[in-house]
Amino acid sequence: MKVLGYAAQNATTPLAPWTFERRAMRPDDVEIEILYCGVCHSDLHQARDDWGFSQFPLVPGHEIIGRITAAGDKASKFKAGELMGVGCMVDSCRECSPCSHGLEQYCEEGNIQTYNGRDRFDSQTTYGGYSQSITVSEDFVLRMPEGMDLKGAAPLLCAGITTWSPLRHWKVTKGSKVAVIGLGGLGHMALKLAHAMGAEVTLFTRSPGKEADARRLGAHHVILSTRPEQMETVKSTFDLIIDTVPYEHDINPYMPTLTLDGTLVFVGLLGDVTPPVSTLPLILGRRTVSGSCIGGIAETQEMLDFCGEHGITADVEMIDIQNINHAFERMEKSDVKYRFVIDMGTLKA
Amino acid sequence: MKVLGYAAQNATTPLAPWTFERRAMRPDDVEIEILYCGVCHSDLHQARDDWGFSQFPLVPGHEIIGRITAAGDKASKFKAGELMGVGCMVDSCRECSPCSHGLEQYCEEGNIQTYNGRDRFDSQTTYGGYSQSITVSEDFVLRMPEGMDLKGAAPLLCAGITTWSPLRHWKVTKGSKVAVIGLGGLGHMALKLAHAMGAEVTLFTRSPGKEADARRLGAHHVILSTRPEQMETVKSTFDLIIDTVPYEHDINPYMPTLTLDGTLVFVGLLGDVTPPVSTLPLILGRRTVSGSCIGGIAETQEMLDFCGEHGITADVEMIDIQNINHAFERMEKSDVKYRFVIDMGTLKA
Ligand SMILES: [Zn+2]
Ligand SMILES: [Zn+2]
Ligand SMILES: [Zn+2]
Ligand SMILES: [Zn+2]
Repeated sequence: MKVLGYAAQNATTPLAPWTFERRAMRPDDVEIEILYCGVCHSDLHQARDDWGFSQFPLVPGHEIIGRITAAGDKASKFKAGELMGVGCMVDSCRECSPCSHGLEQYCEEGNIQTYNGRDRFDSQTTYGGYSQSITVSEDFVLRMPEGMDLKGAAPLLCAGITTWSPLRHWKVTKGSKVAVIGLGGLGHMALKLAHAMGAEVTLFTRSPGKEADARRLGAHHVILSTRPEQMETVKSTFDLIIDTVPYEHDINPYMPTLTLDGTLVFVGLLGDVTPPVSTLPLILGRRTVSGSCIGGIAETQEMLDFCGEHGITADVEMIDIQNINHAFERMEKSDVKYRFVIDMGTLKA
Repeated sequence: MKVLGYAAQNATTPLAPWTFERRAMRPDDVEIEILYCGVCHSDLHQARDDWGFSQFPLVPGHEIIGRITAAGDKASKFKAGELMGVGCMVDSCRECSPCSHGLEQYCEEGNIQTYNGRDRFDSQTTYGGYSQSITVSEDFVLRMPEGMDLKGAAPLLCAGITTWSPLRHWKVTKGSKVAVIGLGGLGHMALKLAHAMGAEVTLFTRSPGKEADARRLGAHHVILSTRPEQMETVKSTFDLIIDTVPYEHDINPYMPTLTLDGTLVFVGLLGDVTPPVSTLPLILGRRTVSGSCIGGIAETQEMLDFCGEHGITADVEMIDIQNINHAFERMEKSDVKYRFVIDMGTLKA
């Protein structure tokens, strides 16, 4: 089936319309007409081959909301017309230990990314949600809770689950003390989710101007990380720090703010922990530095259902697909509150 | 009470005999005649003020084995003549959350080190086990299991508990896969303890010559960390890596050998994690880097009792106190298998 999308033809040209072939429907597939697609930082990085493993042409997009238009013979979970989501993964081996524990993102054979991945069966490159439709195994499709605002829901599929999974894994609950470093797409979701879980939530930021917004989004406290006297007030405080900063940064000022057995978890940085972290706060307080990668499929459904119950969606700016390159430029300046979402209806126009 | 010991008078002179005053007995104190004292790397570092917080004169020694010679009015746990141990701590606040959970080493007010610490009541410097006797609250004294070889038992009080505590905290049990980096005082105890817990134990080393000894001490496998093809065979294998190396070193080659949710725990390095660790193995496998500091008092007793049951002590080289400076020199060259222990009977001679 031929579909229209927006693709990067190489690392240096802007995204532009491109018609490509979606695979023929497999028995467990559903076909989804895409209504909205969130714009993740990794879309920008991979369109420009910042990580060195992009396959071109590249159709980004892994925060996909759409409607089922067809289903394979053995796809029985969903009905045509239902509203669905597709996130960062579209397949995994489904048999290894992580897969059998609902941790498909850590599949021992590697999960298959929604775009810029390689299909397990036909070895073709996968293409993402900046397109009219997508064909996906129903096992990697999420059901959208009834009544949820679908535009704001799109970023839940990546930014939402990426912050939800560590909050759950490290057992955040009512009364937990959680801090979030950075207020972007991931950070604003972390504030909303941690708040709704009943945690006492703190935002670490370097920008005094973010305080009002942070409080509106769920932060009980805002700490300027550039002010040592403010950092001192939160010594040995946090059970969990979610570090959403996507570039290299010094975590040493944050480590003493973790309590005994507390964890700082990276969700945004693919790179080196530099300047180097000292082992002193690790050894003297059994503190931990860890990382977390998106979340499993069942866990993503759990997160969506939680967001449905609590009326949580992302704060988004809607754009037409024709403005995607301008949106990328604004994202590079962190000029978005807090996620761009493409109205895919504009693709046909 | 005047006692004889060996002290560093400043950071540059060798240890030499020194007579000093032990505090008057408090109601909950016991007085212990010291029979044996292990020689820990931190003795050397603090005698030379390598960490910058040494108070001179400094009497090292926190792997103390001795016999009770007197007890205060309210000291009721032990009887005169019983064989006891004193480890790295001699006091803590006893009231904070860590203290009330048996984690005195993480006391919120700081634990009181056996030497080069400051007493909570009289603010006097504490003096360690390179001396005839020590006076300690009975709450910080350990009972030696019956029949245990007391010379080999001394290092259990620091090297033993420092490796036992992370093995227990990270729930090592029969079938767990544990690796140990470095084969010194800490490393050789980690091999013995993990083996006795039923774990499948691997030593990482850079020295091919250590293999036979490692296997004798409990390693089922020995991996040369300098050989990438050997490292490749243990990818995604270990639940826990105990990193005993006391100087800066690259942990990046070890990170991929951790399994999903596996932990590398520093017990030997007080310094920076440099070269910097990459977040990729953290994020892509939810792996963790942590640290651990000695162990609590109840946990130390548990470790001693376990060692008693399993016939575990350290491999030691006995020395006379008069040879302590030579022993320090040999330790700097890692020329000891695997711990020096001072026969304190030689102090009187
Ligand atoms: Zn994303
Ligand atoms: Zn798998
Ligand atoms: Zn020690
Ligand atoms: Zn305490």
